[in-house]
Formats: sequence, C-alpha cells, structure tokens
Amino acid sequence: MTAWTLPQPMQRALELAAASADSGEVPVGAVITRNGEIIAEAHNAPRETCDPTAHAEILAIRKAAEALGQERLGECELWVTLEPCAMCAGAIVHARLAKVYYGAGDPKGGAVEHGARVFEQKQCLHRPEVYAGIGEARAAEMLREFFKARR
Amino acid sequence: MTAWTLPQPMQRALELAAASADSGEVPVGAVITRNGEIIAEAHNAPRETCDPTAHAEILAIRKAAEALGQERLGECELWVTLEPCAMCAGAIVHARLAKVYYGAGDPKGGAVEHGARVFEQKQCLHRPEVYAGIGEARAAEMLREFFKARR
Repeated sequence: MTAWTLPQPMQRALELAAASADSGEVPVGAVITRNGEIIAEAHNAPRETCDPTAHAEILAIRKAAEALGQERLGECELWVTLEPCAMCAGAIVHARLAKVYYGAGDPKGGAVEHGARVFEQKQCLHRPEVYAGIGEARAAEMLREFFKARR
Repeated sequence: MTAWTLPQPMQRALELAAASADSGEVPVGAVITRNGEIIAEAHNAPRETCDPTAHAEILAIRKAAEALGQERLGECELWVTLEPCAMCAGAIVHARLAKVYYGAGDPKGGAVEHGARVFEQKQCLHRPEVYAGIGEARAAEMLREFFKARR
C-alpha cells in the first residue's frame, strides 16, 4: 500500500503556517527551493515586524535573493500555503521564480486565479509555472480555525 | 504672474528618482507624507540591495510603518514618480494608504491604470484616492534618458 505524502517543501510551508498562527499572524508559510533544497523560508509576519509588506512570500523571496547574492531567482521554486495576493504575485514576477506551488485558493485576496490575475495580464513580463491545490485541505483548515477563533 | 510649482513631496520624489539613476537603478523615487510632512522616502534599489522587492514604494512603505510603529498608514499619502506595479499597488492596499499621487503612467509595468488594475478589482479591500500626472513630464524624461543610455 502506498502512503501518499505531500512534497517536503509544502510540508515545511505548512509547519511555518502553523508557527505563524501560534504567533498571532494569519497562518501562511512559504519556502523557496533550488535544486530540491530549501534555501529560504518564512511565515507571514506583518504584525510582528510592523511591516505591511511582510507576507510569507515577500520575506522568503528577500531571504533567497540575499542567500544567492542575486536579485533574480530563475532557478528557484516557491512553495506557499495560500494563493499569492497581487503584491506577492508581482514580487514573484520581479524575482523571475520558475515555478509556484500553492495550497489553498483565496477568492478574497488571491491574485493568481482570482481578482487581478497578475500572471495572466498581457503586459506580464514573466509567467511562472503554477501548480495549485497542493496541501490545500490543511492550509485552508488552518486559516478557517484562525479566523473562527478571532470572530 | 504666478509661478506654478510642483507640490514639494513630488519635487523630492523626483530628486530621489535622479539619485536612483545616478546609482544605476531605474529612476523612480517615492515619498510618504503625514499631515504634510515627509516621514519616509526611498528610491528604487533592487540592484544595490540585491532584493527584487526593493521598489521605491515598498522601501518607503516599510520605512513609514517602522517610523510610526504601525503596519497601517491610513493617515498617510504616497508620492511616487511612476505608476505603481502590481507588487507596489498590492502593498499600498495592505498599508491602507489614503492617497496616491503619481507622475508618469507605465503602460508596460503599471497596475493602476494599466494591466492588473489592482484598485479596480471587486475584491480590493481598500481603494486609495489616486491622482496621476503630477510631475509626469520630468519623471518620464528621466526614464527615457536612463533606458536610452543603456541601449
């Protein structure tokens, strides 16, 4: 019998999302890999860092660029538990990330398959390969629990 | 006879854009004001900082949030020489900036009056007042000169 498991980077992104919730931040985690290895990771932290741009993806992209000493991440892949918003989708384009794997879709704030659909714009300079729904159930459950507890 | 001058924050943003070009970065400058006073300013710096997210607007928003000790900038205004891209427009939404004044429109990379039109999306949580074209001629001229010199 085969046990189906999530790709390791998405497992790690989900752990980071859980850590995000524990510190009172909306539970979103992100990981950047290169040649299968994690080179940067972060969770959502706008409150902790007092920085409205501190989404998990932005923090991970900044760390990866710093780690590699280059502003473009063309050989890298992003794993994030939630569909990126317009800000993060724009950052993915600027960073030239090759692939984006995300967990839950986000009809309210997402800008990949919803709303601004940043990668689908004619003017979009770089379109990553996008794979949605990986680890979706757990990612969405964490978000539901987080917002339910705060209502 | 009246001498018409640009609002001081946009004059400062244009100076920052010129400094950007001098350091080899695409010439874009941004300033954030609160009650008419400049509380943060930055120029475009992705190369210098090795950070693909280091657009003038993102850097200015991060500095303003740090200066005020709060992640929301509802009482603040952003002055930027170029139409914000999707990343920066998304950050403006997250920061809840009240007003955005920009210089030149950007048919290739802009996401306010072009492309993703972030603030016009139904799902957009916060829509700043937007005023375009302030200092447009000088902002556009600097960009033309910059790219012409690099061709």
